[in-house]
Order: sequence, then structure tokens, then C-alpha cells
Amino acid sequence: MSGALEALFAHDAQTSALGQIMGRLHWDQETVMPPGSAAQRAEEIGALEAVLHARRQDPRLGDWLSEADPESETDAARLDLIARDYQRARALPADLAVALARAASTGQGIWAKARADEDVAAFLPALSEMIALKREAADAWCAAAGTQDRYDALVEDYEPGLTGAEIAALFDRMRPRLVALRDAVLGKAAAKAPLQGQFAQADQLRFAALLAERFGYDLGRGRIDLAVHPFSSGSGADVRITTRVDESDPFNCFYSTIHEVGHASYEQNVAAALGLTRLGQGVSMGVHESQSRIYENQLGRSEAFCTWMHGAMSETFGAFQPEDAAQFYATVNAVRAGYIRTEADELHYNLHVMLRFDLERDLIQGGLDVADLNDAWNARFAADFGVAVDRPSHGLLQDVHWSCGLFGYFPTYTLGNVYAGCLHEALRRDLPALDEDLARGDTGAATAWLGERVQRHGASKAPRQVIEEATGAPVSEAPLLDYLEAKFGALYSL
Amino acid sequence: MSGALEALFAHDAQTSALGQIMGRLHWDQETVMPPGSAAQRAEEIGALEAVLHARRQDPRLGDWLSEADPESETDAARLDLIARDYQRARALPADLAVALARAASTGQGIWAKARADEDVAAFLPALSEMIALKREAADAWCAAAGTQDRYDALVEDYEPGLTGAEIAALFDRMRPRLVALRDAVLGKAAAKAPLQGQFAQADQLRFAALLAERFGYDLGRGRIDLAVHPFSSGSGADVRITTRVDESDPFNCFYSTIHEVGHASYEQNVAAALGLTRLGQGVSMGVHESQSRIYENQLGRSEAFCTWMHGAMSETFGAFQPEDAAQFYATVNAVRAGYIRTEADELHYNLHVMLRFDLERDLIQGGLDVADLNDAWNARFAADFGVAVDRPSHGLLQDVHWSCGLFGYFPTYTLGNVYAGCLHEALRRDLPALDEDLARGDTGAATAWLGERVQRHGASKAPRQVIEEATGAPVSEAPLLDYLEAKFGALYSL
Repeated sequence: MSGALEALFAHDAQTSALGQIMGRLHWDQETVMPPGSAAQRAEEIGALEAVLHARRQDPRLGDWLSEADPESETDAARLDLIARDYQRARALPADLAVALARAASTGQGIWAKARADEDVAAFLPALSEMIALKREAADAWCAAAGTQDRYDALVEDYEPGLTGAEIAALFDRMRPRLVALRDAVLGKAAAKAPLQGQFAQADQLRFAALLAERFGYDLGRGRIDLAVHPFSSGSGADVRITTRVDESDPFNCFYSTIHEVGHASYEQNVAAALGLTRLGQGVSMGVHESQSRIYENQLGRSEAFCTWMHGAMSETFGAFQPEDAAQFYATVNAVRAGYIRTEADELHYNLHVMLRFDLERDLIQGGLDVADLNDAWNARFAADFGVAVDRPSHGLLQDVHWSCGLFGYFPTYTLGNVYAGCLHEALRRDLPALDEDLARGDTGAATAWLGERVQRHGASKAPRQVIEEATGAPVSEAPLLDYLEAKFGALYSL
Repeated sequence: MSGALEALFAHDAQTSALGQIMGRLHWDQETVMPPGSAAQRAEEIGALEAVLHARRQDPRLGDWLSEADPESETDAARLDLIARDYQRARALPADLAVALARAASTGQGIWAKARADEDVAAFLPALSEMIALKREAADAWCAAAGTQDRYDALVEDYEPGLTGAEIAALFDRMRPRLVALRDAVLGKAAAKAPLQGQFAQADQLRFAALLAERFGYDLGRGRIDLAVHPFSSGSGADVRITTRVDESDPFNCFYSTIHEVGHASYEQNVAAALGLTRLGQGVSMGVHESQSRIYENQLGRSEAFCTWMHGAMSETFGAFQPEDAAQFYATVNAVRAGYIRTEADELHYNLHVMLRFDLERDLIQGGLDVADLNDAWNARFAADFGVAVDRPSHGLLQDVHWSCGLFGYFPTYTLGNVYAGCLHEALRRDLPALDEDLARGDTGAATAWLGERVQRHGASKAPRQVIEEATGAPVSEAPLLDYLEAKFGALYSL
């Protein structure tokens, strides 16, 4: 290996390892950290972030990159991503990077308080400042890349290579069929039987661990803990998930567990040879979400798996309602227009995302002023969901993303659903006995297919390339919409 | 503040924060890390260690140090320690630092296997290599400091300013009274009543938390977890301890908890203004051990506290033997000649340390060859303890220290006992009602005294200075020996 390539890869390996440490600190903070340690932890994270920041724009990277000769396709992919990270880091002025980090940290605190107080006005100044900083960052990235579109420059952090215009076109194609389906379902909506029974915390956690194992999560290289918000953290040999428990609603715990297992499996199943390199992680938020959503929805909320789960839950929790497996499946998949994105069914979820995408793109591009955002949100929500927002925490203040600068992130949720639709179609084609497996609670063939086709590649292929090579077809919204129409058409006798 | 001073202190603050992160990683590894994550964790720790290593000898430190003007006594103390660390780091050749780190890591693995296999010969080559490397490091430090003694150069890492000759003289003064007392006790030794009862793990952990709170451990800035070996980890606002549970021997859990609470309180109670600086931690291993030992022994194993603890244990565990509080106190303080240092009573403990000190000093100075070490250990143990070592894990292979290069560490255990003796004498003088407090399970006045006199200073004063200013008297072994003679004289009716 050439000296430059060797030096570059050693630097990358160390940066990757330090990035893993950052993940451990965040996991610790959300799960086991003593309550009085928050201020000190912020200093610790700040110190590590400063080290990472300096490494990302270490001028030696430029020298090595100009001299390094890749010896394989994987090397070339690794060099490409290192070069891309380096260019983006170098393009951002140091004082702007500091200001962004500080605004994200304070903004999240201000948002949390504003949400608790139901006080939109208290949040808007911080949001204005954040948007101004993100625009400045976008301008710097555009200038460095010779591009024009601020929003595109921000999306690059979450779904490299995708543009706002492409997302808009995708969402425009999806919306009519999605809305028609949702309207048809709500037009028929007989109330689904509610879940009723005793779902004690300890039993829920035991069952969540069972579900995690059923979906292939390797607890020898991971663990499940309680946290306020479910998340997955880490890559390679140490990938941990969290869940939460509501004793009156065990689906909250179970489906968030399956969802996080999708994310965690992606990180656990990246080829070991890519471990602690720039390629040793999920390639984009969209592809990540495709894994969590296909685990959660196309597999976990399928009729076959619900049949198994109904029986398995009876063993853990004793008798509960609904007693009938078919009704249980309907309960799991009940469609309701609700305020909250993270609690939405498979139909409304994408409408939540589209609302946020349109608003945030307008905010960044200057077509919408922050002062008008709350009205715009409420008007759009009423139009899309047929319900008036009753309080800010059910509207503009519900999501953390914008408070910490995550503009361009929301659309990757629906993109993940679209990717999941494509993967699910191919999976069904390749595994004709899938429903027989799922009805036994066996996801082995399906998760092995995803591991082989998607997860093992890590970031060594571009996002869309991963999906298209996995399915053998171009990415399209059609499989997702076909699946939703078939599933909910049958469930609601359309 | 001058530019150089500001830059130096900012660098120090960041280094201190990164040092804390290293502590979190080790805590995580010993408590919650998934079993399959060990190899990756080693890489993560290696990457952070490389960052810390580079920072410790960052050439800018030399420039800043030569320009920085301290603005206070605290600044001056901070500069002194930063300069000392920098000089030691710069004196060590880079390849030697790497070789030492590698030898420590592999040596510990070889030691663990050799101990499990009871195979001294399997450990000796690694030990030889480690000793050669430590000698080389000692020579480098001696050359840089213009000193001669290799062992002194190593002690500097654990008890700055103390020499092997001073330790030897101290131990020579202690030994006759200690041995005479031990012999007198063993000559009288009526067997103490054994502890008998039901001590379930969950109850032990609940009681350990009660003890920790009674000794002033702030669980809002700490936590207690299970681990194979009890330890304390972290400084400032995040200081965690671990314990272990043996259901037939609850004292193992309880006294290791009190011991670790002593260490943890020291770290928690350093003045907040010193937090995340080079001064924001315990000043030496000896002073650290003085806190853990005075909490554990002079307070926790006192007759007054044992009286309270006997009653409190009855509330938690129901009836147990001994039923009589005075007998319980005798049981807690039973004297027995045993193989294992960490299980030794207050008398034998120091004999264990003296044995190791003499052997390791000879090893480093060249008077003892590794090939002869096991025979030397066994001969010395038989002479000092009147018992033949029955297996290597009860002898040379019992402690991890030498395998990872901790030469010069052992004597700080007895030094800590000596410091604890001095502090205890002053504490009794200043708090005449101490026994009344302890008999109510109230350590508040005692721990506040230690917090104020010792702990809050962190590393802002030299080790001996801390103790001498706290007590108003020169450090001496006499108070410890007086205390031991009075306590065990009464217990064994000498």
C-alpha cells in the first residue's frame, strides 16, 4: 500500500473509532448517566467533538488524498467518502461550525422548554438563528461544490446525491394515490378493537428481547435498555438499542424495538472488513430508514407475523383482547388521523413527512418566513389531516429536528419507506414462502436477504445503488403504494 | 489572562475532558459492554489513547509553558503539574510508549490465563519484557530529571515526590510493631463467630446503596453497578462505583462499597472550580487510598458504626448470626493469616504490601531476577505469614499490577493507611462526638471534615502537604500503629 494511502486509512480508522466513542457517550447520556452529570458531559462531548472537527479538516488529508492510489473498488469508495467529508468540513468556516454546534445545543434546550410550555413564540428566535446559520453553511457548501440550491446542500448530509427537486417530484407522484387510499380507508373506518390486557413493564421488556432476537439482533454485540426516546447507537461490534414502555400500550415498546432492530441490524451486519472505516456504517438516512421500516412494517406488521405475535403474546401476557388473531392484525394496523408523526400509521406517516418537507424547504430557500411558520403548519395540517392542531406540542413543536439544525432530514423518512417498498417487492419475489416463515415468527430468510443484499455493503455503494442492485430495478414509489393499497384495501374491505 | 496561559489552560481543560471520556469507556467495558464488543472497544480505546498521547507531548505546551505567567497560587500549581506531565511525556521515546502500552495490554491477558491455569512459567516471559521496558522508561525519566534511581522514577507516577528509600525507611519503622501486634493477636486467637444468614443479592445491593448514601456518596452524580472487580471511575460530576456480591459473604459487597465510596467521594468533592482541569482529581494514589481506607476501616469497621450496621442489617436481612452487636464487631474485624491481599484484615494487609514492595524494588533495581521471583515470593510469604503458598493464584499470580506495568504502585496502599491513621487521629481530636454520630450511622461530620480538609483540594497541593495541612502535624506511622494497637488490643484482650 502506498504511504499516502496507508496514512490516510490509518487516520480514517482512528477517526472512525473516535466517532464510535461519541456514540457511546450519547448512549450513556440517554440511558445510565447520573442526572447531575449533564453539564460535565456537555464539556466532555464538546472536547471530543473539537478533536473530531480538527481531524475532519486536518490539512494532511488534502495531501494524502492528492497522492493516494486506490488499490480496489472498496478503496476507491472509501477515498471518495473521505474526500467528500473533507471538502465539506474545509468549506465550513471555523466560526460558523462553532456557532452551529452552539445553536444546536442551546436550540434543543429552548425547544424542549417551549414544547413543555406550549409556547411557540419562545422557540421562534432560536429557530430563526438556526435557519440563518444553516443558510450560511449551505452557501459555503454551494460555493465549494459549484452548486446553487441551499436545500440540496443540506440534504447532502443525510441522503448524499439526492436533490430537493427529486424529492418534491417523488412526493408529488405519491401524494394522490396516498391521499385517495387514506380517504377511502377513513370513509370505511369501522373502529378497530382496542388492545386490552395486563402488560407489565418487565414482561414487555422480556417480550421486546424475544422480538429483537426473532429479527436477528445479536445481543452478544448489543443490548436493550430503557430511554425516553427509542434509538439505535453504534456500528460494528457494539450496536445498542433503547426502547420505552407504556403499560397500557405495549405496541409502543414492541414496534419501536423492531424498528430500532432494523437500524441496529444494518450497523451490526456491515461486513467486518469495513469495520472502523468510513465505509463501516449505514450509507444514508434513507437506506437506514428502509431497514427499520421494512422490519417494523412490511415484516413486523404483516398478517403472518401478527398471527405468530398474537400467540406469543398470549404466552407472555396471558389472555388479552382482541382474542382473535385476525382482529389483532387489524388492531396493529388501525388507521387514524393523529397529530403526532412518530405515532402515525403507515398511511398518515408519509403525509406528516411531506408537510415538514415542504415547509422546511421553503424556510431554507426563503419563501417562508419563520414568523409565518406556525400558521403555515396549522393551515397545512388542517388541509392534509382534516383536523385543527389543538396545541403547539401537537403541531410545530412536536419534533426536535429543526431545533438542532436537522434541515433536509425529514424527507429521508418517506424515502426510507419508498426504499422499503422496493426491497419488500423483491424480497417477496425471491422468498415465496416468506409468509409461512413469518407465521412461525421466523424472519431468518428475510433478514438474511436484507443482510446480504443491503446491510453488508455499509457505505461502500451510493444509497440508490444499494437499493437498485438489491432489487434489480430502479427505485420507484410504485411498490410501496401497491403494497399499501393491497394491505389496507384488504383490511378495510375497499 | 495572558494568551499563553489561556491557550495552555484551554488545552488542559480539553485534555482533562478527554481523560474523563477514557474513564467512561473503561467503566462501560467492565459493567455494560456486550461480550462480543471487546476487540472493537480495544480499538476505540487505542484511538483515544493515541489522541491523549499526542496531546500530552504537544510541542505547543512547551512554548506556552515558557511564556505563561500564573495569576494565582492555583494557577501556579496547575502549571507545575502540566509541566511535569509534559516533561515525563516528552522524555519517553515514542516507540517505547507504544511498546509499553502493547506490553501492558498483552501482559494482562497472559497474566489472567496464567492465573487461571496456575502456571507461573507462562507469565514470566511477559513479566521479564515488562520489567525491561519499565527500566528503559525509568532510565529515560532519570536522564530527563537528572536523577539516578529507577524505582523512584516509577513511583513518581503514583506518589509524586516520594522515594523508594523513604518508603523503605517508613516500612522498616512500621514492621516491628505491626508484626508484634499481629503475633500477639494470633497468639490469642479465639475463633470469631462466623456470619450466618440469608443475604440475597438484591438485598445486598439495596443495603450497599444505603451504606453509600450514609457515607455521603452523591448518587445524583454517580451510580453503583455490579462488576467483577470493585472500582471507582471518573472525576467531578460523574463518579461511578462498582461492587460485587457473594451471597455467603455480604461484607465483601458492603466493605468494598464503602471503600470505593471513599475513592469516589474524593473525586466528587474536589472543588467545582478545579473541575476538568489538571487539578480536578485526587492528587496521588496514597492520598486516594487514605480516603478509601479511612471510610472503610477507621469509620466503617469502628465499633460504633458496626453497632449501627448490625441493627440496620437486621432490618434488611432479618435475623442473622451473630445476634450480638459486640460479637458482630469482632466478626467484622477478625484477624486471619490469608493468602490474598485484597481480603486481608487491617494488620496483615500492610505485610502483603511490604512483601510486594521489597520484591518489585529489587526487580526494577536488578537485585532480583524474574527467574527467581516465585521462589522469593514463596519464601518471603512463608516467613511473614507462617504459611506456605499452596498455589500460584494465592501467591505471585494473585495481583494484576505487575502484568500491566504498575511498578511503584503497591506501596501507596500502605502509605494510604499511614495517611488514614494521621487523618483519623486529627478527626478524633476535632470531632469528640464522632462515636455518637457513627453509632447512629451518621458519618456526616467525619466526611465533611475530610471533604473540607482533604478532598476539595484535588491536586492543587502536593500529597504530603495535603495530609500535613489537614492534620497540622508531620506525616508519621505512629497514629496508624497506635490506632491498630488500641483497636486490636481491645478486641483480642491483649
